[in-house]
Amino acid sequence: MHSVCDLAEFICELDKLKAVKRQITLPADNYRQENSAEHSWHVALMANMLSEYAVKPIDITRVTRMILIHDIVEIDAGDMFAFNHQSDHDAQAEKEIAAAKRIFGLLPSPLDNEMLELWLEFEAAETADAEFAKAMDRVLPVFQNMKDNGGSWKRHSIAREKIEKRNAHLKSCAPALWDYVLQQLDIAVEKGWLSQ
Amino acid sequence: MHSVCDLAEFICELDKLKAVKRQITLPADNYRQENSAEHSWHVALMANMLSEYAVKPIDITRVTRMILIHDIVEIDAGDMFAFNHQSDHDAQAEKEIAAAKRIFGLLPSPLDNEMLELWLEFEAAETADAEFAKAMDRVLPVFQNMKDNGGSWKRHSIAREKIEKRNAHLKSCAPALWDYVLQQLDIAVEKGWLSQ
Repeated sequence: MHSVCDLAEFICELDKLKAVKRQITLPADNYRQENSAEHSWHVALMANMLSEYAVKPIDITRVTRMILIHDIVEIDAGDMFAFNHQSDHDAQAEKEIAAAKRIFGLLPSPLDNEMLELWLEFEAAETADAEFAKAMDRVLPVFQNMKDNGGSWKRHSIAREKIEKRNAHLKSCAPALWDYVLQQLDIAVEKGWLSQ
Repeated sequence: MHSVCDLAEFICELDKLKAVKRQITLPADNYRQENSAEHSWHVALMANMLSEYAVKPIDITRVTRMILIHDIVEIDAGDMFAFNHQSDHDAQAEKEIAAAKRIFGLLPSPLDNEMLELWLEFEAAETADAEFAKAMDRVLPVFQNMKDNGGSWKRHSIAREKIEKRNAHLKSCAPALWDYVLQQLDIAVEKGWLSQ
């Protein structure tokens, strides 16, 4: 068994994710920017409520764990807005891999490698677990922006096709949710929250 | 299968937990107060890292789910500082039960009852899963306050015995963590962060 001291540094390091700001703003808290820690909680809980929509067998324990760790790299790398240029995303990906190695490296072995592997699996989004986890991460802002009259979509003049493409994982992993998203995007275009 | 629309209201309601403030302050974010959503993420992830310390068999999926929902009632009832008077806690408990019925009631059946039952199980802390989940919720501030030179303990002049009593679930469910906590409390008293 690991010494608890070996885990304390990792546990305390996590506080830093609460300082990483995202593009979503929160009507329920004076429109402050959402942070990546509370976002991770929201996605994890939502995934547990929506798991019945997964059409491929998934292990919800692994899915939840992936979601809980998926943004930890932002402690070092920061959050990048989904619709930045591709060159920004390539540079960000390099920063995130270095961050993953440093931060999961705070854990004792073999937890360090297990968490690094799980994070890499999430990033690749090729297994059923990772595909569902990634789809959950991407669909939550659909619920939030629809509730907030367009929210960050409207502020950044986003086109419908970008959100459709970003949520395309749902097509194969949770088609009922995909249909729901398409309906919501129709409404968003009609209301002027997304451009056509 | 439930209509996704039936779940959207619950998913959006969760944003409100991000506005519920706790006594812990965050050195990593200009000492603002922690909120109950990001706290729930932190506890859930920590529980997944510390599950090897559980000496009774636990189902980490249920434990994680309990932790993810444990504070949702604070959307209506607010967070109560752990060391308020007993009469305050009794009034709070009533408010929390009403809140649980309203908020989990936003979910379609049978998810509504499943989540209400899971929350009641967490509150009672009598099963091995709930005891471990509750112990995780209570031990995180030990890590945080030790890292923050006494943090909320020092600000509120808390006595060591209160923290010891609050973490006593660990004695039977994770004795190695209990030993760690006792060592940390000795250090906290020595440093003047807790009174004797």
